[in-house]
Amino acid sequence: MKINGQPYRAIWPKPDDPRTVQIIDQRHLPHQFIIEDLKTVDQTAAAIQDMHVRGAPLIGATAAFGIYLAAVTAPQSSPEEYSAFIQAAADQLRATRPTAINLAWALEKMLAVISAAGGFEEKISAARQSAIQISDDEAEACRMIGVHGLDLIAGITKKKDGAPVNVLTHCNAGWLACVDYGTATAPIYAAHDAGIPVHVWVDETRPRNQGARLTAWELGQHGVPHTVIVDNAGGHLMQHGMVDIVIVGTDRTTYTGDVANKIGTYLKALAAKDNGVPFYVALPSSTIDWTIRDGFEIPIEQRGGDEVRYIQGLHAGEIKSVLLTPDTSPAANYAFDLTPARLVDGLITERGTCHASEEELRGLFPEK
Amino acid sequence: MKINGQPYRAIWPKPDDPRTVQIIDQRHLPHQFIIEDLKTVDQTAAAIQDMHVRGAPLIGATAAFGIYLAAVTAPQSSPEEYSAFIQAAADQLRATRPTAINLAWALEKMLAVISAAGGFEEKISAARQSAIQISDDEAEACRMIGVHGLDLIAGITKKKDGAPVNVLTHCNAGWLACVDYGTATAPIYAAHDAGIPVHVWVDETRPRNQGARLTAWELGQHGVPHTVIVDNAGGHLMQHGMVDIVIVGTDRTTYTGDVANKIGTYLKALAAKDNGVPFYVALPSSTIDWTIRDGFEIPIEQRGGDEVRYIQGLHAGEIKSVLLTPDTSPAANYAFDLTPARLVDGLITERGTCHASEEELRGLFPEK
Repeated sequence: MKINGQPYRAIWPKPDDPRTVQIIDQRHLPHQFIIEDLKTVDQTAAAIQDMHVRGAPLIGATAAFGIYLAAVTAPQSSPEEYSAFIQAAADQLRATRPTAINLAWALEKMLAVISAAGGFEEKISAARQSAIQISDDEAEACRMIGVHGLDLIAGITKKKDGAPVNVLTHCNAGWLACVDYGTATAPIYAAHDAGIPVHVWVDETRPRNQGARLTAWELGQHGVPHTVIVDNAGGHLMQHGMVDIVIVGTDRTTYTGDVANKIGTYLKALAAKDNGVPFYVALPSSTIDWTIRDGFEIPIEQRGGDEVRYIQGLHAGEIKSVLLTPDTSPAANYAFDLTPARLVDGLITERGTCHASEEELRGLFPEK
Repeated sequence: MKINGQPYRAIWPKPDDPRTVQIIDQRHLPHQFIIEDLKTVDQTAAAIQDMHVRGAPLIGATAAFGIYLAAVTAPQSSPEEYSAFIQAAADQLRATRPTAINLAWALEKMLAVISAAGGFEEKISAARQSAIQISDDEAEACRMIGVHGLDLIAGITKKKDGAPVNVLTHCNAGWLACVDYGTATAPIYAAHDAGIPVHVWVDETRPRNQGARLTAWELGQHGVPHTVIVDNAGGHLMQHGMVDIVIVGTDRTTYTGDVANKIGTYLKALAAKDNGVPFYVALPSSTIDWTIRDGFEIPIEQRGGDEVRYIQGLHAGEIKSVLLTPDTSPAANYAFDLTPARLVDGLITERGTCHASEEELRGLFPEK
């Protein structure tokens, strides 16, 4: 999508430099737009762990490029040492974030591709091709989510006699979380680009404010009308008919339709159910965990309490971190929660929309 | 309650100075402890409107002292001009915040007392006595809420074989929101003081962070174990059995048991219902609106969007305000939401605990 009118993706191989991958260091948005070079596995692991990049699809694509960088930088002294380096890189990358399923999925795919290729040069070439393919596939899946989700939004505006459709979203399941288009935002961008009036309620999404920082910025750059709200506000808006549909992303979804997503998603799903507001989850199939039946088995990451106690923002032109709590008060920081399938009205995938059930998911993805 | 070991209330007449009332300017907590002198109606109105003081019971008590200051400063040129000044003061104070019922309640009571008294000196004396009485009554009501709520917490710890009771609370319904003891915190302080182990999950309560700033500070000063969490986290904690009871305050409750409280309360009530966690609202009867049947008729205050876009905290020893959103993104700021009686397991009042129903509320308060 566009930044200041220029098309960007969230990750890309650096032109004319086969040993470098580039990302947007999202920690500085919306106040500073900084592009970061990744040249090593360590840098890539740090970029994922410290959330220079985040969002399940982008974590997967970044891990894939991380394995490509491993293939480029691995010692070619012997096939065994080369393979051991790649394997260690995969282990290191896998340990960065526990919840997103795309991470493990992308790593397995990359390892298989490298293992199947012949000599070192072939392995490097295959790894590069595969990382680009994973990245392109994620973008294409998101584009198709937009195509299918557009129907939903078009249906709502028709019922409202063309009045703007109010979409509520949580966290950033935008193109910055993916490679392009986004998951939850793909139907929004598709509708906006098709001339359907949309307005987005953007949950700020504490503690890391991905909504206030990233989703609001993305939507603003693309010209989509939006309003930032605190995470507490969505229930009130739904009680007063001010939300037509909730669309969120997911970090991992079971094949039964249970959805692990950013902490607080479950609360919005409860409010949607209580007020008859349709609650949809947009996801590429790479986010589906075909091995887990019960969502409560999905590991939920706990992060440091200082992400709650401190917050960053712009003061007099500089990004500053300020303490919000008493110095002596501890904080807990659970990064995700689980929205059971019973609260989900539908899943928007790259192959179409379905109910959050094993039967319908297997219907869309019979090869799984 | 205590600050650094010294007992305080949230508002008090300044000793040896009958023309001054003192408050804690809560905007600077937890980082700075500043006592503010109020000498005029304008100062009192600003203190309420700009939230130097907040919380329904304290708003009522502050408005009462504001009318006392009006009685002290009103022109004594004629009884008509004196009365007109008092009436204008009441109108000004009534317009500061729309949701808390205690505000109107305290103003009506003060106007009646002043109207009934004879000469100017008698009116001033009656106003002072009445404001102190309203303040004392609020404190005593909160103390009794603690007595009744203690039974609830004692019952839970008995079932848990003496393990700590995990209470989740939203916003600050602590002694800083009242005159003393607090509403939601009164049972917590009572339990803690009685040697019952309690641990409090403190919702930070965006946008103004009354939980992270005030409740955490209060509990810390009193030595009550607590952990600050983002507003998004409570549902996850309840899903995992980490919350034994939710206790919140209220800004206005209908006689049918519908509860208007800080934005986001409704989401916690939904999560409590979904997980079988008891959800209680602690309130002095001054917070009950005996004229409204349907909670959705309670006016919900909208405040400026910059309270969402900016946040204050401590940086290098100074309180700084930082911008959280893109400069061009607008924000909406609804201050309260409505939790329907069907989601409330019980009301803890100064006369005991009851179900959130007209029948039981009228049973406790038959004179209404």
